[in-house]
Amino acid sequence: MSILVVGSVAFDSLETPSGKRERVLGGAATHFALAASYFTKVRVVGVVGEDFLPEHENVLTNKGVDTKGIERAPGKSFHWRGAYLRDLNEADTLATDLNVFAEFAPKIPAEYADSEYLFLANIDPVLQLRVRSQMPKVAMVAGDTMNYWINAHRENLLKVLREMDVLLINDKEAQMLSGESNGLRAAEAVMALGPKSLIVKHGEYGATAYFSERSFGDGVKRRPFRAPGLPLHEVVDPTGAGDSFAGGFYGFVASQQQLTPELFRRAMFYGSAMGSFAVERFGTERLQQTTRAEVEERIEHLRELSHL
Amino acid sequence: MSILVVGSVAFDSLETPSGKRERVLGGAATHFALAASYFTKVRVVGVVGEDFLPEHENVLTNKGVDTKGIERAPGKSFHWRGAYLRDLNEADTLATDLNVFAEFAPKIPAEYADSEYLFLANIDPVLQLRVRSQMPKVAMVAGDTMNYWINAHRENLLKVLREMDVLLINDKEAQMLSGESNGLRAAEAVMALGPKSLIVKHGEYGATAYFSERSFGDGVKRRPFRAPGLPLHEVVDPTGAGDSFAGGFYGFVASQQQLTPELFRRAMFYGSAMGSFAVERFGTERLQQTTRAEVEERIEHLRELSHL
Repeated sequence: MSILVVGSVAFDSLETPSGKRERVLGGAATHFALAASYFTKVRVVGVVGEDFLPEHENVLTNKGVDTKGIERAPGKSFHWRGAYLRDLNEADTLATDLNVFAEFAPKIPAEYADSEYLFLANIDPVLQLRVRSQMPKVAMVAGDTMNYWINAHRENLLKVLREMDVLLINDKEAQMLSGESNGLRAAEAVMALGPKSLIVKHGEYGATAYFSERSFGDGVKRRPFRAPGLPLHEVVDPTGAGDSFAGGFYGFVASQQQLTPELFRRAMFYGSAMGSFAVERFGTERLQQTTRAEVEERIEHLRELSHL
Repeated sequence: MSILVVGSVAFDSLETPSGKRERVLGGAATHFALAASYFTKVRVVGVVGEDFLPEHENVLTNKGVDTKGIERAPGKSFHWRGAYLRDLNEADTLATDLNVFAEFAPKIPAEYADSEYLFLANIDPVLQLRVRSQMPKVAMVAGDTMNYWINAHRENLLKVLREMDVLLINDKEAQMLSGESNGLRAAEAVMALGPKSLIVKHGEYGATAYFSERSFGDGVKRRPFRAPGLPLHEVVDPTGAGDSFAGGFYGFVASQQQLTPELFRRAMFYGSAMGSFAVERFGTERLQQTTRAEVEERIEHLRELSHL
């Protein structure tokens, strides 16, 4: 089944202990779409500028991603400059040039209306809500957000959270959103705000899924599930790891018939696998190159890492 | 089979978001011994002062721990004062009164000579080495250390590391010891210094075991194994979590016939289970109270948390 993802398509300039790259293709929707493309059909709604060339579009279309929803606007694409020299787990933002993204008003092509799965990547919650309301018939809504929206646009964010089947955020965002420093209490407080299920990402340590009585429609509240992060010899560029996790997770969910607890757990492993690929090269390099067989091999490694 | 543990038996004065406690029984050897006592016989070599009363000794003997190796010296026991108000994952040390521990010269009772397993808790590596040389016939040596010894007593520490079958340290210590920030490369560099296997503790996220070709005597190098940390509603007092992990891990290992890869993985889960109990109450309160049935229940929770 098809996923519609709305979010940023951008250029990233990056510096990490492994080197530097200028203006490589990035953005939440890009990482998400590439990761999900290994499992299911993906359609992207976003906006780019005149610097988005056929070679960039090909990165997505080569993997079967539908780019008809990527609007071209006069000017330059969103550009982010960041460095991970202090700590590979935390980016220092050096520049954020919103450019055409500043006026982003998501337009959903008519042919995208039958998408069964909606992913609201990290953008203004007002836009997330607008897209959600234009897709009333989707079977499932998942999404992301960040500290800026949690702090400065909380009212709007709370409206989106009520629409979410699965919210994916990191530890700090869960703490900020809930006001709770304890991970389990934070998760319960966040789910009380709306999301039926919550995935909290722990960087290199993986991610934990928390469930509510509403997670699987059977009124049963299940205990948390942890997908480990794979130990890697080199983390070249952490940018997009979380979006790649989301793409792997949601792509696998959308490729299956029904969301069961077992499927949710397996999807967590696919998320972790795609996140582990993402960080092995700069930008989307590694996500462009992997194969489904390589993905399955990594699932086996994750199983070996975590199973008695 | 029997474990001989050498390390601190102390009093801790603690402040955490959950409250304050003055002079509760603590110390690495105490936490280790209580956690291991659920699985095997434990003998403690340490030193205490005149403030160590029968009620304190009973905490250990009630769990079958052999305390004949705890020497009584004139003066006061080791006392540590710490707070976790800033961050539950990192203690702020407010006072360290070594007292009788400053002159600690481990004396091993003759009847302890047949102990098959040796655990060298975090003390001066010179003392660790001295104890090790007095126990030439043990089947296995495991141990711990800390940043102080890594930085200021590196030469001595390196001698102990060459004696270790399993070293247990945390992420920061592994980085400091190896000079590597990447977890996997750090682990390989640490094992190159001597330990056949390495367990790196990640606080609330659990711990990862790394293996070398020497881990199981068959020349085969296995991939890492991660035991997750159990999400808990309240972490009351993190003091001793790492020592309790070590006690659960090593106690389970010592209770079995032979160290196989499968046993090592299961022992990691017992370590995580005992660590999770330790932090639920102040000091050793929770470790005194649990039952083997409760331990097994927690193993089941860890399995549910991590298994597809």
